[in-house]
Amino acid sequence: MNRIENLQNLMRKRGISAYIIPTEDFHGSEYVGAHFKLREYISGFSGSAGTLLVTLDGAYLWTDGRYFIQAARELDGSRITLMKSGEPNVPEITKFLQDFLSENSALGFDGRVLSADFVLRLQKSLPNVKFKSGEDLGDLIWENRPPLSAQPVYELSERVCGLSRTEKLSLIRAKIAERKADYLVTSALDEIAWTLNLRGSDVDFNPVFLAFMIVGHGSAQIFAESRIFSFEILARLNADEVEVLPYGEFYSACSGLGGAVIADLKSLNFAAYSAMKNAKICKFQSPIMQMKAVKNSTEILSEKSAHIKDGIAVTRFMRWLKTSVQSEKITEISAAEKMEEFRKMGADYLGQSFEPIMAYGEHGAIVHYSATSATNALIEPRGLLLSDTGGHYLDGTTDITRTFVLGVLSDEEKRAFTLVLAAHLELLHARFPRGVRGSALDGIARLPLWREGLDFNHGTGHGVGFLLNVHEGPQRVSWRAVNDAPLEAGMITSDEPGLYVENRFGIRHESLLLCKESAQFDGFLEFEPLTCVPFDRDGIESSLLSDLQKSWFNEYQRWVFDTLSSHLDADEIKWLEEVTKPI
Amino acid sequence: MNRIENLQNLMRKRGISAYIIPTEDFHGSEYVGAHFKLREYISGFSGSAGTLLVTLDGAYLWTDGRYFIQAARELDGSRITLMKSGEPNVPEITKFLQDFLSENSALGFDGRVLSADFVLRLQKSLPNVKFKSGEDLGDLIWENRPPLSAQPVYELSERVCGLSRTEKLSLIRAKIAERKADYLVTSALDEIAWTLNLRGSDVDFNPVFLAFMIVGHGSAQIFAESRIFSFEILARLNADEVEVLPYGEFYSACSGLGGAVIADLKSLNFAAYSAMKNAKICKFQSPIMQMKAVKNSTEILSEKSAHIKDGIAVTRFMRWLKTSVQSEKITEISAAEKMEEFRKMGADYLGQSFEPIMAYGEHGAIVHYSATSATNALIEPRGLLLSDTGGHYLDGTTDITRTFVLGVLSDEEKRAFTLVLAAHLELLHARFPRGVRGSALDGIARLPLWREGLDFNHGTGHGVGFLLNVHEGPQRVSWRAVNDAPLEAGMITSDEPGLYVENRFGIRHESLLLCKESAQFDGFLEFEPLTCVPFDRDGIESSLLSDLQKSWFNEYQRWVFDTLSSHLDADEIKWLEEVTKPI
Repeated sequence: MNRIENLQNLMRKRGISAYIIPTEDFHGSEYVGAHFKLREYISGFSGSAGTLLVTLDGAYLWTDGRYFIQAARELDGSRITLMKSGEPNVPEITKFLQDFLSENSALGFDGRVLSADFVLRLQKSLPNVKFKSGEDLGDLIWENRPPLSAQPVYELSERVCGLSRTEKLSLIRAKIAERKADYLVTSALDEIAWTLNLRGSDVDFNPVFLAFMIVGHGSAQIFAESRIFSFEILARLNADEVEVLPYGEFYSACSGLGGAVIADLKSLNFAAYSAMKNAKICKFQSPIMQMKAVKNSTEILSEKSAHIKDGIAVTRFMRWLKTSVQSEKITEISAAEKMEEFRKMGADYLGQSFEPIMAYGEHGAIVHYSATSATNALIEPRGLLLSDTGGHYLDGTTDITRTFVLGVLSDEEKRAFTLVLAAHLELLHARFPRGVRGSALDGIARLPLWREGLDFNHGTGHGVGFLLNVHEGPQRVSWRAVNDAPLEAGMITSDEPGLYVENRFGIRHESLLLCKESAQFDGFLEFEPLTCVPFDRDGIESSLLSDLQKSWFNEYQRWVFDTLSSHLDADEIKWLEEVTKPI
Repeated sequence: MNRIENLQNLMRKRGISAYIIPTEDFHGSEYVGAHFKLREYISGFSGSAGTLLVTLDGAYLWTDGRYFIQAARELDGSRITLMKSGEPNVPEITKFLQDFLSENSALGFDGRVLSADFVLRLQKSLPNVKFKSGEDLGDLIWENRPPLSAQPVYELSERVCGLSRTEKLSLIRAKIAERKADYLVTSALDEIAWTLNLRGSDVDFNPVFLAFMIVGHGSAQIFAESRIFSFEILARLNADEVEVLPYGEFYSACSGLGGAVIADLKSLNFAAYSAMKNAKICKFQSPIMQMKAVKNSTEILSEKSAHIKDGIAVTRFMRWLKTSVQSEKITEISAAEKMEEFRKMGADYLGQSFEPIMAYGEHGAIVHYSATSATNALIEPRGLLLSDTGGHYLDGTTDITRTFVLGVLSDEEKRAFTLVLAAHLELLHARFPRGVRGSALDGIARLPLWREGLDFNHGTGHGVGFLLNVHEGPQRVSWRAVNDAPLEAGMITSDEPGLYVENRFGIRHESLLLCKESAQFDGFLEFEPLTCVPFDRDGIESSLLSDLQKSWFNEYQRWVFDTLSSHLDADEIKWLEEVTKPI
């Protein structure tokens, strides 16, 4: 752990007792580009979420339930203590720091990679601690650090996204006016991409580009490397009165802002917040988050088209897998490549929407497993393959999990497979009055599992962007959520309950659902599936499903057959008919 | 509306543009004594929740869904505008004031009847408005205002409440130390009564007495009229090192407090908060709220005993009602009196735990209906009687709703009756991991209703105190709740879904449930019913219940029979056997 010692030496020189290294970039992104993977560089833990705290004589890594198994393995042999967030007797980092830091000691971090909200709460909890946020110590010890990404940006047609950027800017200005403010500042990459109808590839799997944005009543500025824009795009931005300024000038622009500024302190970084000395900051959730989450009718039509293409690809993968597993040598990695091959056959396919999870047997129990050459398992004609993958198309983003049955299952596996299916179907068929948040829906989804004393350690649903990040807010389906927004017609949310038995197997069934007004009941909302791929009926123990759940299941399978069959050849149709026949 | 004009005249003289009159007392109580019913005195609206805003040329009353029908009726003919909280296009009072008050205008209220939390948020939302909180204008216009109540206090035996007041004070001091604070200040009447093992009757139906309390590591002070305590109680308080000071001296004691003070700004009034100029205020939910909500094993045994006595009384009422309705003249008021007669036969009965709701026919749709001589309906041998009542016993507090069938029902009534029963049973049999809050459970409870496009406009469950207020936090069962606490073993919570058809009928089925560890599944919690009264099987359309729900229902009815029959005479047992036979 040379890297930790190097950091500790620097900390000693600067009189810093503890240094925080989160997973974030300058934009509060969930996933980050290579330049920002300092936490992984220093700790060796490669999961997508986690916070490292280095003290002068130790190091601690906090991560959540999705990563307990993976982190324990990756940290094994290091001197880093794994802190399992949310487990009893594991203090959160703030509490830990309260106990650890003595009066007048100094806490260090790079003010650009922590949100203003987090730092302000930390300051409140640690009133007698000095905060040193001006220096990125990681930069001094990271040899050959990858530079900031600056990939070219592309533009979406209004035909797929429904609104022009000038229309979106008008809507944003109306929200600014509604709040009696002068400006909106945002650093959230997906909000900026959505507003401008531009996409990029500065973050693996997320079609975003590094930028900040300041919108005023008479101005719109983006801060980004100008070389990422083609002349054509620059000209059109110019015509739409969007000014492009250098990425690094964002902080000085913040210093210059006066008046009332809407800023979402959960995503804006602390350095930018601190720079806005002359402004009155109105701390609101960015109105763009909500606007982006509620898809317009064009985006919905686009997404439906993307999901049919994706459904064809994953259904073909299913057929290939279930027939070839008997005869071919298939590994987790080769299966993921095969999935990608099928997706590439779809029109306007851009790439994967997240790192594929192709997890065979016991690997299925590692919630965010990603096969490496060291772990790559041979897929044999028995047990279960958990396949959680997704794609970006020019007309939308997909995210689907199916758990495929490759041979005879144990009663325990069948029971788990079926109960998770029941949970999935309960959420798919939930109906609820306007205003309900995902916590109430999560009770409905988990009911079939909780009744049997079973549960899983992740959320049941997350928002999904329109050709954007596969995870977005403001809605969620999780009983743990506290500040989530009510579900609204037009939102796209995943439905992905699971069950995991460590060292044995994992089950997850995930579709994306479109929220819509109930046709039958005034004031009620319900869901419609976007994901169009059969569930593997070979895993079902039908005595564990209610009659209603069975009819919901058969209805879904029938819909998949009806929707996909016109796109398939005769052999495929014959096979699909068989796998979608009623239970 | 002379009273409003009188107030407006005073406001004009003092340069106040808007004056807020909430329902609260000096203690943030949900229900208040006669002295505090200024909002009712001025507006004429008698519901238990509502905020009146008087402007120089108008008046507005905000209330919640429970009271929409009642408020509309009571305000009819007045010049007061009814503001239905939570309905679309109805601004909350803060938003309304933002639009209404011009810069530098003054907002008035009595700083003792609004919580510090509410006023601080108001100040934040109205940065350019002057706040005048020093004067109770109501006092100047209310002729013959009832004085502050000062009823005698009684003491509970440790045998029923499990912990002595010195033990409770030690636990509170440990919580103060845990938070690194010096004092805890509380004005919540139930917290003070619980801590001191004392009860009073200064608020109708709530066994509390007017007092404030300051606990330090070496001190415990209560501020209350000394004449409410007997010499014996005063001597025992003295022996336990609890100092009794005059009620009115609380504010000067607050001014004198230094160091770190834990205060729950949601219940502490703004005047007290403002007085604590020398203290560092630690804004936490009062730790007593949580301690009080999690009943100890003695309190649980006591409550079970109280619920058997209450079960006998309500079951006898049910028998009397269903047989006598054919032959006797029964009204809503006489039925409530009869219920009280049956309760009085139980040992250690103290009185009703809230104003009884005995609502026949269309009155059942008024969620918090209370019969008056003007509305008192004759109960006839048809339709439904919704009976929501409760009692205080020396060993506990009850709250029960049964909807009784008095004759042939319509299909719509039966359907509603049965679906609400399904909702009730789903919550009763919910099983869930530790940490889950009531919002997730509310989804489970409402599922049978939502599926049919039906809903009801109140929470599904509230905490209930041990011989204390019939409504208490910190847990709730409501998808609308945002800051509620997770359910914990030892908490007592109501389970009371309903359905209401305006001008037609209302259904509610309510039992109190004890939360406990699951015997079968580690880490899971579940419920056990405390309320022991049959549901009226005559209302059930059994084809609308699942097999599981039917077996749950039969199991409950059987438990009621087994528990009560040893307390009943032969005729009663015969009748009970019939009404609890399986469906």
